[in-house]
Amino acid sequence: MIRTTILGATGYVGAELLRLIAAHGNIEVAHLCGDSESGKPLSAVFPHLALAYPNRDVVRWDSAMLADSDLVLAALPHGASQRLAPEILASGIRFVDLGADFRLDTPRDYAQWYGEAHAAPDLLDTFVYGIPELNRSAIAGAQAVAAAGCFPTAAILALAPLVRAGLIDPASIVVDAASGVTGAGKAPKPETHFDTVDENFAAYGLLTHRHTAEMDMVLGGPVLFTPHLAPMNRGILATCYATACGDGDPLAILADAYADEPFVHVSDTPPSTKWVMGSNAAHVTARRCERTGRILAIAAIDNLGKGAAGQMIQCANIMFGLDENAGLSTIGVWP
Amino acid sequence: MIRTTILGATGYVGAELLRLIAAHGNIEVAHLCGDSESGKPLSAVFPHLALAYPNRDVVRWDSAMLADSDLVLAALPHGASQRLAPEILASGIRFVDLGADFRLDTPRDYAQWYGEAHAAPDLLDTFVYGIPELNRSAIAGAQAVAAAGCFPTAAILALAPLVRAGLIDPASIVVDAASGVTGAGKAPKPETHFDTVDENFAAYGLLTHRHTAEMDMVLGGPVLFTPHLAPMNRGILATCYATACGDGDPLAILADAYADEPFVHVSDTPPSTKWVMGSNAAHVTARRCERTGRILAIAAIDNLGKGAAGQMIQCANIMFGLDENAGLSTIGVWP
Amino acid sequence: MIRTTILGATGYVGAELLRLIAAHGNIEVAHLCGDSESGKPLSAVFPHLALAYPNRDVVRWDSAMLADSDLVLAALPHGASQRLAPEILASGIRFVDLGADFRLDTPRDYAQWYGEAHAAPDLLDTFVYGIPELNRSAIAGAQAVAAAGCFPTAAILALAPLVRAGLIDPASIVVDAASGVTGAGKAPKPETHFDTVDENFAAYGLLTHRHTAEMDMVLGGPVLFTPHLAPMNRGILATCYATACGDGDPLAILADAYADEPFVHVSDTPPSTKWVMGSNAAHVTARRCERTGRILAIAAIDNLGKGAAGQMIQCANIMFGLDENAGLSTIGVWP
Amino acid sequence: MIRTTILGATGYVGAELLRLIAAHGNIEVAHLCGDSESGKPLSAVFPHLALAYPNRDVVRWDSAMLADSDLVLAALPHGASQRLAPEILASGIRFVDLGADFRLDTPRDYAQWYGEAHAAPDLLDTFVYGIPELNRSAIAGAQAVAAAGCFPTAAILALAPLVRAGLIDPASIVVDAASGVTGAGKAPKPETHFDTVDENFAAYGLLTHRHTAEMDMVLGGPVLFTPHLAPMNRGILATCYATACGDGDPLAILADAYADEPFVHVSDTPPSTKWVMGSNAAHVTARRCERTGRILAIAAIDNLGKGAAGQMIQCANIMFGLDENAGLSTIGVWP
Repeated sequence: MIRTTILGATGYVGAELLRLIAAHGNIEVAHLCGDSESGKPLSAVFPHLALAYPNRDVVRWDSAMLADSDLVLAALPHGASQRLAPEILASGIRFVDLGADFRLDTPRDYAQWYGEAHAAPDLLDTFVYGIPELNRSAIAGAQAVAAAGCFPTAAILALAPLVRAGLIDPASIVVDAASGVTGAGKAPKPETHFDTVDENFAAYGLLTHRHTAEMDMVLGGPVLFTPHLAPMNRGILATCYATACGDGDPLAILADAYADEPFVHVSDTPPSTKWVMGSNAAHVTARRCERTGRILAIAAIDNLGKGAAGQMIQCANIMFGLDENAGLSTIGVWP
Repeated sequence: MIRTTILGATGYVGAELLRLIAAHGNIEVAHLCGDSESGKPLSAVFPHLALAYPNRDVVRWDSAMLADSDLVLAALPHGASQRLAPEILASGIRFVDLGADFRLDTPRDYAQWYGEAHAAPDLLDTFVYGIPELNRSAIAGAQAVAAAGCFPTAAILALAPLVRAGLIDPASIVVDAASGVTGAGKAPKPETHFDTVDENFAAYGLLTHRHTAEMDMVLGGPVLFTPHLAPMNRGILATCYATACGDGDPLAILADAYADEPFVHVSDTPPSTKWVMGSNAAHVTARRCERTGRILAIAAIDNLGKGAAGQMIQCANIMFGLDENAGLSTIGVWP
Repeated sequence: MIRTTILGATGYVGAELLRLIAAHGNIEVAHLCGDSESGKPLSAVFPHLALAYPNRDVVRWDSAMLADSDLVLAALPHGASQRLAPEILASGIRFVDLGADFRLDTPRDYAQWYGEAHAAPDLLDTFVYGIPELNRSAIAGAQAVAAAGCFPTAAILALAPLVRAGLIDPASIVVDAASGVTGAGKAPKPETHFDTVDENFAAYGLLTHRHTAEMDMVLGGPVLFTPHLAPMNRGILATCYATACGDGDPLAILADAYADEPFVHVSDTPPSTKWVMGSNAAHVTARRCERTGRILAIAAIDNLGKGAAGQMIQCANIMFGLDENAGLSTIGVWP
Repeated sequence: MIRTTILGATGYVGAELLRLIAAHGNIEVAHLCGDSESGKPLSAVFPHLALAYPNRDVVRWDSAMLADSDLVLAALPHGASQRLAPEILASGIRFVDLGADFRLDTPRDYAQWYGEAHAAPDLLDTFVYGIPELNRSAIAGAQAVAAAGCFPTAAILALAPLVRAGLIDPASIVVDAASGVTGAGKAPKPETHFDTVDENFAAYGLLTHRHTAEMDMVLGGPVLFTPHLAPMNRGILATCYATACGDGDPLAILADAYADEPFVHVSDTPPSTKWVMGSNAAHVTARRCERTGRILAIAAIDNLGKGAAGQMIQCANIMFGLDENAGLSTIGVWP
């Protein structure tokens, strides 16, 4: 059994990691770290985990935990893991980080989008950008993976094969996406109060959302990205537009690119976020608009699944040479 | 009192018209027509109207009703009103139609987007396209108004002043919009079953939605329009993108265009559909993206309010020289 | 025009009062008080009110405001109004309070359920319990009204005529009710975070909810009351059970009791909270269960309408001799 | 591998069975029967199953399928399985039926509540009522199990140990429950249209819901049962009231009764339906109301999990001597 320590275990991604690991035959939980709720029984923080994880407590992170861990899974606010990474990596164990800290290629990009100098710039090269459909072999050989952001995962799965095939002009990309509210985290805020969000649809982070940086890095760009908040718990739909450059069939290009992928479903039918809810699947489609000379490509994922915890487990499975599907499902909890 | 006959009174727009008219000091209901439920008490079809409209029955349309009506308000499936319009117009009374039949300029456009020849092409010129912020004086002098579609109303309010000012290239417009489920009507369908839609976000009508025709007609174009279904009852948010042509300030242009409009609120804050829920208000914003050279403009309306029944009443108020605000509110039922 | 000062103007009930007053021909807003957000433009706190209340600021309460006010409407946390009431009442103007402070008959009941001594016990007799269907004539002659709680309003409308008719045993009453999330107020909390509440149904306040005290006071009792939180913004449904004492027809008793009431709809059809959403209406039904010898009675209201702001305005209308319907609607915003 | 044929595979319970079986190591799907959609690819009916069940078609039921099946799982409208049962049972294979046909003890009870004579009354004794926590050993030895209804499962889990312990008077039981909309099935109806149900809470089936019969059978009774529809996809919360007979501690009785149960969590915290969403878990609580001399007991389940497909798989696991947890999870998909 691979023993994993989870940092940020009391957040939404932490809860999802614990759900997935409970059904994973090869990974077990060594330590559950969550500083703000350390000392509490896990069942008090997450009653839905009470039967599966009886008698477990949330603890405070201590680097001594590295000694009996094979893997660290971190879901922390950005800025936190760049302070922890040197020690984790030095211990020689593997690390899958969901934070934004090690996703971008250069300290300059990090500083530009996150508004602060990077605290561990030398480690940026150690991390592989964690989308298996893009970087599977690099992930297999990596000690550290920076799992991609939720919006970029969706947009990149929809667009990267089209960029690679030269079918679209990267400088023309518009990504218009909607996310469920779990994307905003567990801390109560006026913006995520039920009565603010329920029966509401609105855009936010106009022109400045930080996930734009990952899209630019992978797709070229500059990408214009507009996130929206939809009144639902989970799910991201990225509806993407770009000027067509050639006359290939975008759907055929996607189907070809993902023919052997266990978690990507390509179809002519417009995808629904609900079809992937609770799963690690991505559903994608694309078509050409002859009237306007543009390509329309759409991807649906669960922001906590393929957009977070699922992708982390998928990366860990690859890093340890396990069955890539272990602990993961392609089936959404529908309806 | 202006006596109005409502066609399609048992649909969602019919219900909203009845709600608005109950608070309107100058319009009263002459006849409530709804063929599929004729003979039923209104309180059996719409229990929420029971106290306000006691002892009213739904009846079958009969053109003899024109004799004691001053106004017809029609919310029927497209195709229906082109068969009724000749007789209504010949009677000399005023007509506000929400159907798509008389919105487009030419029979050719209608045939192209609606897939059938127009049955009353000679009457197309009689109808004014019903967005008061665009055509107030023409509406004031008209016998017949074709109230705009819900998505076009939102997109046009966000973009028309920018096109008029030459700030954006009409051929570059992308309209990405989300609608509440009432936009799909009252008849039960698999696509609008609660369990299909709740906790789901998906695009539909890819590249072919008929409302594109109205956007092209008013904005130039060709517009690429993608509608989405959001898990909420009411509301449309249109997020619009276009290439910038000059260096004007898009927000200032909107503020200037709508300075005297009673129902349009211009703000730098991204609008929320919930702020306009149940009202006739439109909230709009816009800003320039220097990174990509594009303009982003967003509008929020209630699809049953400013996108349907509210706009119909606003048009009727103008046609009869009433206070334009009569029976209408700018205040959403929030939260 | 009656000039009103609103205390707690930046909460949900405050927002609803402002919406209702905007459509009220005889009441206007003198001062908008909200201590925590004083100094802000109202449009920044409530963008949905921007068009209706331009250029208004939220201010800090000052008793000098009583000089140019005819009415105070207060929607404050319990405990606050018992400190303000002496000065308001001494000024001679009218006062409608939504707080719990002056609803109960005795200081002892207040202390028992609210866990603290009452700060102004001598004023308890000055306040009439504010449910017009129960106490219309007393309200008409009162200087001060304590508008009823949301759950009690629903339960009492369903049950009071049955108790009065001797049809049910007060000691056998069970009230099982569900509320929309606005009932929990505007301050963000873990319990009202969208992701906690959405797609969830749960009971809370088991056996100890303070609104039980009002039910006991009016209905007899002791009442067993269980509130639940439903994943919706607004609405209360109270499903009430009691042992039948005689063989009267409960529906006929309700129909008779409310025959002349403008805001109560009695029907054999089980009521839906959505039918009254945004209105001041109450829909009630009742029937006898022969198998178990019990009476089942159900009421639906909007917790912010008939359960709060609507009832406050209805009381104020009665106190000032205005049309009882002024500013109020019986029509829910449906769907 | 145990080969199962699924009847009603294209309904909600069918979809959930397919999701659970995909993660079950010992059961595989022999035939997917769904008469109304036979001939279609499963991926067209259920896109969320496309990756997990590629190249499967929905077929029409044919009793020849019994030859290569070890198990039939049926989720059909009531009335259907009493016509199929004779042939299935005669074939000697095992049968888990979710229909209401074989749940009740006597043909008279069936006729009374379902309004028609039973077509296979001789087989009633062959079926064990399928709640493992009640009847585990009988299920282990049975050829046929009639899995319990969703509402009865919740109410019985909350109350049966209290009845057994003599703590409550069966004739005093009131069950007030709320269900997610999937309980009403997949066929589109006005009552399950998104716009009817969303933001709504209402009771239905007043005094006459057929699930009452199961509660009476197991708990004694007569039970007064009121179901409500809550605006969510899944989940049942049963809030139960009964007169206390002795002075035992109801929570301790539940904790004792379920101490070794893998899927029942007993806690003093009021349960949330969301904690069990997508799982086979039941969360229960209970407490005594000294003021009224009543016991309050509450249970939360997923109507498609422990209330349907999960319970069916749990019963099948027991019948075949498999690990009772195979294919099942205790962890809800939260949030």
